[in-house]
Amino acid sequence: MSSAKRTKTNPDLQKERDGASFNPFSLTCLLHGGEENVERKRELERLALDDPELQHEHLSFLSRDERYTLGLKKTIRFLNKCWELDITGIQDVNTYRRAVFLGMLEPLSVHYGMFLPTLLSQATEAQQEKWLSQALNYAIIGTYAQTEMGHGTFLRGLETTATYDPKTEEFVLHSPTLSSAKWWPGGLGKSSNHALVLAQLYTQGQCYGMHPFIVQLRSTEDHTPLPGITIGDIGPKFGFDEVDNGFLMMDHVRIPRENMLMKHSQVLPDGTYIKPANSKLAYGTMMLVRSYIVSDAAQSLCRACTIAVRYSCVRRQSEIKPGEPEPQVLDYQTQQYKLFPLLSAAYAFYLASHYMMNTYFQLSGNISQGDLSQLPEIHALSAGLKAFTTQVMSSGIDTCRMACGGHGYSQASGLPLLFANATAGCTYEGENTVMFLQTARYLVKCYGASRTNEKLSGTVAYLSRVQTAAVAGKGTRNLLDLEELVGAYQHRAARLVGMAANQLQAQAKAGKSPEDAWNSCSVQLVKCAQAHCHFFVVRNFVDTVRTADVDDASRAVLNTLCQLYAIHGIIENSGDFLEDTYLTGQELQQANSHLASLLAKVRPDAVALVDAFDFTDEILQSVLGRYDGNVYENLYEWAKKSPLNKSQVHESYHKYLRPFLQQNRAKL
Amino acid sequence: MSSAKRTKTNPDLQKERDGASFNPFSLTCLLHGGEENVERKRELERLALDDPELQHEHLSFLSRDERYTLGLKKTIRFLNKCWELDITGIQDVNTYRRAVFLGMLEPLSVHYGMFLPTLLSQATEAQQEKWLSQALNYAIIGTYAQTEMGHGTFLRGLETTATYDPKTEEFVLHSPTLSSAKWWPGGLGKSSNHALVLAQLYTQGQCYGMHPFIVQLRSTEDHTPLPGITIGDIGPKFGFDEVDNGFLMMDHVRIPRENMLMKHSQVLPDGTYIKPANSKLAYGTMMLVRSYIVSDAAQSLCRACTIAVRYSCVRRQSEIKPGEPEPQVLDYQTQQYKLFPLLSAAYAFYLASHYMMNTYFQLSGNISQGDLSQLPEIHALSAGLKAFTTQVMSSGIDTCRMACGGHGYSQASGLPLLFANATAGCTYEGENTVMFLQTARYLVKCYGASRTNEKLSGTVAYLSRVQTAAVAGKGTRNLLDLEELVGAYQHRAARLVGMAANQLQAQAKAGKSPEDAWNSCSVQLVKCAQAHCHFFVVRNFVDTVRTADVDDASRAVLNTLCQLYAIHGIIENSGDFLEDTYLTGQELQQANSHLASLLAKVRPDAVALVDAFDFTDEILQSVLGRYDGNVYENLYEWAKKSPLNKSQVHESYHKYLRPFLQQNRAKL
Repeated sequence: MSSAKRTKTNPDLQKERDGASFNPFSLTCLLHGGEENVERKRELERLALDDPELQHEHLSFLSRDERYTLGLKKTIRFLNKCWELDITGIQDVNTYRRAVFLGMLEPLSVHYGMFLPTLLSQATEAQQEKWLSQALNYAIIGTYAQTEMGHGTFLRGLETTATYDPKTEEFVLHSPTLSSAKWWPGGLGKSSNHALVLAQLYTQGQCYGMHPFIVQLRSTEDHTPLPGITIGDIGPKFGFDEVDNGFLMMDHVRIPRENMLMKHSQVLPDGTYIKPANSKLAYGTMMLVRSYIVSDAAQSLCRACTIAVRYSCVRRQSEIKPGEPEPQVLDYQTQQYKLFPLLSAAYAFYLASHYMMNTYFQLSGNISQGDLSQLPEIHALSAGLKAFTTQVMSSGIDTCRMACGGHGYSQASGLPLLFANATAGCTYEGENTVMFLQTARYLVKCYGASRTNEKLSGTVAYLSRVQTAAVAGKGTRNLLDLEELVGAYQHRAARLVGMAANQLQAQAKAGKSPEDAWNSCSVQLVKCAQAHCHFFVVRNFVDTVRTADVDDASRAVLNTLCQLYAIHGIIENSGDFLEDTYLTGQELQQANSHLASLLAKVRPDAVALVDAFDFTDEILQSVLGRYDGNVYENLYEWAKKSPLNKSQVHESYHKYLRPFLQQNRAKL
Repeated sequence: MSSAKRTKTNPDLQKERDGASFNPFSLTCLLHGGEENVERKRELERLALDDPELQHEHLSFLSRDERYTLGLKKTIRFLNKCWELDITGIQDVNTYRRAVFLGMLEPLSVHYGMFLPTLLSQATEAQQEKWLSQALNYAIIGTYAQTEMGHGTFLRGLETTATYDPKTEEFVLHSPTLSSAKWWPGGLGKSSNHALVLAQLYTQGQCYGMHPFIVQLRSTEDHTPLPGITIGDIGPKFGFDEVDNGFLMMDHVRIPRENMLMKHSQVLPDGTYIKPANSKLAYGTMMLVRSYIVSDAAQSLCRACTIAVRYSCVRRQSEIKPGEPEPQVLDYQTQQYKLFPLLSAAYAFYLASHYMMNTYFQLSGNISQGDLSQLPEIHALSAGLKAFTTQVMSSGIDTCRMACGGHGYSQASGLPLLFANATAGCTYEGENTVMFLQTARYLVKCYGASRTNEKLSGTVAYLSRVQTAAVAGKGTRNLLDLEELVGAYQHRAARLVGMAANQLQAQAKAGKSPEDAWNSCSVQLVKCAQAHCHFFVVRNFVDTVRTADVDDASRAVLNTLCQLYAIHGIIENSGDFLEDTYLTGQELQQANSHLASLLAKVRPDAVALVDAFDFTDEILQSVLGRYDGNVYENLYEWAKKSPLNKSQVHESYHKYLRPFLQQNRAKL
């Protein structure tokens, strides 16, 4: 239970909770996988939140230097506690981690997120023996140095070289240009003493592409950079203040042959290169990372919605009727129109992330048994969903911030920091447009296959079922019916995939090279990938509403949210549904009037719906989003602690303002 | 000329400039009001940029404390220089100011932006004699304390009281609740020693609403807060680090009767209240402020586009065709689709701000001659345009940032800071949704008047001309024709205004109170206001393309940009045009194919189009957007200067990391 629950709750919020049509705990259990998991989650959270070693000032009162230092301190406390209390399972560790870091980022996250997993999947047994135990015990700290100043998403363009010298049986790691400097890896700037460096492998005069090499960066004695290593922090960013994203240049740095990870490819002592057996296996890790990003995107949107919805019930402003008390801001239809579709998207994405996680684990099982058949489909879906959810989340947090008016702009709201950190998800681990185009490439391929009567399955099966793109509008659809909604999204996605595929073909027929044709259709291709993801999210939401193990009241509110999510999406993308007259203008008008009703229907349950996310106040880090709704007194308390208030008269007065005022008074 | 022009330009950028179809200086002159103005602008900019007193580290390397102090220092230098060199005209002062502050905000901007103008417009002659000269000479520093913790946009809800005591002929200023604390005023926290406090006036037992009172806050001797005054900084925000937005609570603070500004309303010594003659006059200042916001929004979007477009020509990534060199990122259609519509919007908004400024000055002339007839129309337009342009600008900067990939997320790009500061424009001086609803109220009123055959004029005349909402699509429109485009936007706006008005009427007929009816239609009302603003911006752009005094080559490129702006808006809002079959699906397909052609047509002129904005590198404050395109070497130089790189080994290593590593090594 949130500690805040012990204080007296703002009566406006209390009234909201008393009036809800369902018990939020029921949805908390749905979102967190059952009552037992919820209890365990809360227990781990309290462990972190009550830890005196983890208390500190509000992040926005600290300098970047202090935040980086605090990040390190928390990391060490976190790891020591995990070891001490034997917190191990991935879910437990992640829950505990979230409660330790409270919206901060982790300077060493690349060590456990990339360095360790890469050792596990790409090091030979002998290499694991040498490195793994050191890494697992944090006797060395490693990062994963792939991205360079000049190249990110396009791996083949990376310039760092690793040239094998058979005379000494060493690789020579080298940064041949400024743009080949490794740039961005987390923990590279100041923290790590080792790195997995991705470099173009040259041996016997041939280039064999990117391979990973273990390079020691800093002395294990005094942490100074080793000879040939130029290393540092890349400077402040939008967010990620706690992370020392770094740069690395290597000047002919020699490492033993054994420092190339050789489970898949090998370079023999004489320099002979031996090819890897199967290159598709690496896709697994990428999918897992993307599934986590979908889950993080959902979480971030949930946080923003919690803050904005609670504050909109506490905030009273203006008047609907003269003479009556000022209404809660959430009673304005325009406010509901901003927040409730995002609230429904938060649920939709949460449920989509469940699907992705379950599918990933099922797929991993299949892959380990040699069955790679589903890999391309789920890989394409994970790329698209990563882009689709982070995009909505990023602009959604910003909408929530603005929906909180002026106070949303204060760091006290927690929203600026949430935005600055979360929006990075649109760019890292595959830039969103590139992700959508990956998905589109698969969709167009499937569409082509379905034209030759190949059978499609899983999330793309619909591409073969919807054969005709144009369906005359009936004008009598019941757009509150979940099946009708699924049908509309399915039709839109299939039509847009078909259109993009046909456009591609037409360009090719007109004499364009496949590459130029692809580029000249890419705006349409992105749109078809978005439509596919949107359809998936709607369908998955609908499926969950039907099958979820919840009581009737909870199912009813989920049903409303699901209708709202789908109808809002139709209205915001109405052209896609009207263009081929699948929907008529009259149906669109009905959709608008349904939306107005659904907003009103969600209104009394809005606070319970965000309470169900089960964020403690400490995790939310928002004065506006407090569980007890005591916003104003705490806004004042927060401001009083801010650094500029350490003295009544700021020192700049003596240095600048006083002489200036005196000079000016003398003129009068 | 930019100092950067003296360095060797990146050949990719040089090629762009050599290949442009027009001379950017021609558009620079159009945007800045002629060649003479451009020369003057550049002269003033150099004055600031070459001033050794104004040099400092990159803002993102400084703490908030340092940034506030730097803001004060710059303000003082700026004012002293203006006085010394007699820089006076509003345009000159603003140009010089921009070059002094370079994207920083100004702690004392409320002094000249609100405190001074309010004294000028609302103080009696006697009051001006006492206060104006002190304020003009900065012998006192004032702020404008209106917004409270509990109330922003809704002025009538403000709670601060000023109660007249005839016995002592004083007002007693008081903050009766915590939520009545003044909150947000710029310069209130630390800098100002006076404030214009807006408070509910009570005299002879009656409340007469909001009036302005001059209250001294701090000692002119030592700057300590006066008795009864509780004052401080409200804490860090998303942006505005240099500004001490503050709070103020007053505990029965007594001020002389003469400290109420009495040009319009008065309180006589015995407490008798005398009403103001005309309350509409205050609208003028509001409109001017909103016109400036439109102009700022255009400027901010221009900056973001300049950075993203230049960087997209320098950055090469991935491959379109195997074996060929990596293309410039701007050659990707998806990148063009992100940036060129924003580039066209930047031009459109710039031109709209010209219209607003010209109209404001013309209107001020009319008003001073007693003609208030145009006031409601232009007031409604200024509210809507403020919201419309800041909304597109805010999300547009974010799109530009993400279009720069990972490096866009670095503070070196200049985009995070630009966003964090500029996005505040969506909230201050009237929250955007409230602004749109103000515009909508006027539009619906005009629509109603036109139904009773009242003649409408100016920017709303079209509401009476388009009588029927539904026009059958002809399927043969030439959507590259500017008149067709204006017609489409006009039809959409008129239809949406009509629909909202009818919906309002239907709700009222069904028995809802006017207030409830208004609230339940407010989503549609916002949409019709947006459509009205969109139409205005398109029409104004089209008018400028026709009438601007530029050479043929420049007019041709403006024509292309204008087509792009309008067609992109149709595609992004296609449902609005398809819903009543004004456009057919076939026409929409044509629009899509026009858009693809227009993107390709803008491509070779993109760099020249951003060069025409004429930002020096110092004003852009972006490593990615440098005029010479030497991005990578300067990214490295920038990073090296960042605070975390002051030592090779960060001090936290000794405190935290070293003991941790030693502990872990011992376990092995």
